[in-house]
Amino acid sequence: MNHALTTPNELIQQLNWRYATKQFDPTRTIADSTWLALEQSLVLSPSSFGLQPWKFFVVRNPALRQQLKEHAWGQAQITDASHLVVLAIKKDIGAAEVDQFVARMAEVRQVSTSTLDGYGGMVKGFLAQPPYPITMDSWAARQVYIALGFLMYSAALLGVDTCPIEGFSPEKFNELLQLPEQGYSAVVLCAVGYRAEDDNYATLAKVRYAPEAVVGYYD
Amino acid sequence: MNHALTTPNELIQQLNWRYATKQFDPTRTIADSTWLALEQSLVLSPSSFGLQPWKFFVVRNPALRQQLKEHAWGQAQITDASHLVVLAIKKDIGAAEVDQFVARMAEVRQVSTSTLDGYGGMVKGFLAQPPYPITMDSWAARQVYIALGFLMYSAALLGVDTCPIEGFSPEKFNELLQLPEQGYSAVVLCAVGYRAEDDNYATLAKVRYAPEAVVGYYD
Repeated sequence: MNHALTTPNELIQQLNWRYATKQFDPTRTIADSTWLALEQSLVLSPSSFGLQPWKFFVVRNPALRQQLKEHAWGQAQITDASHLVVLAIKKDIGAAEVDQFVARMAEVRQVSTSTLDGYGGMVKGFLAQPPYPITMDSWAARQVYIALGFLMYSAALLGVDTCPIEGFSPEKFNELLQLPEQGYSAVVLCAVGYRAEDDNYATLAKVRYAPEAVVGYYD
Repeated sequence: MNHALTTPNELIQQLNWRYATKQFDPTRTIADSTWLALEQSLVLSPSSFGLQPWKFFVVRNPALRQQLKEHAWGQAQITDASHLVVLAIKKDIGAAEVDQFVARMAEVRQVSTSTLDGYGGMVKGFLAQPPYPITMDSWAARQVYIALGFLMYSAALLGVDTCPIEGFSPEKFNELLQLPEQGYSAVVLCAVGYRAEDDNYATLAKVRYAPEAVVGYYD
């Protein structure tokens, strides 16, 4: 009945170990078994309706990363980390993607798609008229940030370092990776690897507001 | 040197245990020590520049939750889960919030704010002119979704169930919780508690696209 994998204390300790790594050790590569778990945790990330309006592009090609770096303020993490993940939204999500997802659901759960008509219709209704004004691309980008969180969290649990990066040109990244042709657009990056021993940021105190400043209760 | 808390296999197993809970057991309450860790994992969530453009409102008051439920399509999770978290952005983030954060950084790291002028200026520059067109509220909402991911992930690690909820009226929630007066606006909800034994969704196969459909490599 108790499915806890860890204790509250261990969990908090591990979250405190995590930090946005500025200097990666360029000589250290993530082992395949570890990377597979990180890839799998991207795949398993939750999204609204389970729709997965995304794709994750992993750039390991050094020459390509050198080119990308020029469009990310020259940040060293782009080239030095073991893996560079470009998290992208599926552009202009709509009825076609819902049908695709419903087909996948029918396949995985071994039911006929007709039993899922109600569900599909409900999701289409939400996307056509969300309960608050938002474009589909903005909505998809929010989901991608859940996956970004899952990737960083899984890495921290496995003792792997990450650095999320918003300082880059999505336009140039899209161009170099030919994402629009595939229906995607880059929204955020995550460098994944191992901290350099001399990264001074590793030992700086984490700066957070006091809990009472960011958590409020209605009792 | 090895700071891994768990193994790749255990991690994937735990992520597979997680699902969007539809039926919570209304008789089960999260123990204080567990809740504190969940609260702390919200506090420790990463955000761009560490700016924490958010606040998390935890609603335990049953009468208030009954009212909120009416503006969330009557979803039972709103009232039945142990805790209801309303994740909100700080509205219209700008220079004032950067100054506030820099002051906090100086306090935590025990340095003078003048040593952080460069950093503060850089963050203000980013917010004033982001590398892609985005409003500050949309930008803040993306950060909030990282925190949503961290909350769901921490809960899963501790054997606690969650259900993220986008189907609600932010306008009505803002009104009932008086968030605009405090400078905040609701973007997404998360019900946190324990699954009911008869929640059929718990045993349904998780529906995900094949890894090769959502993860691409540039080698």
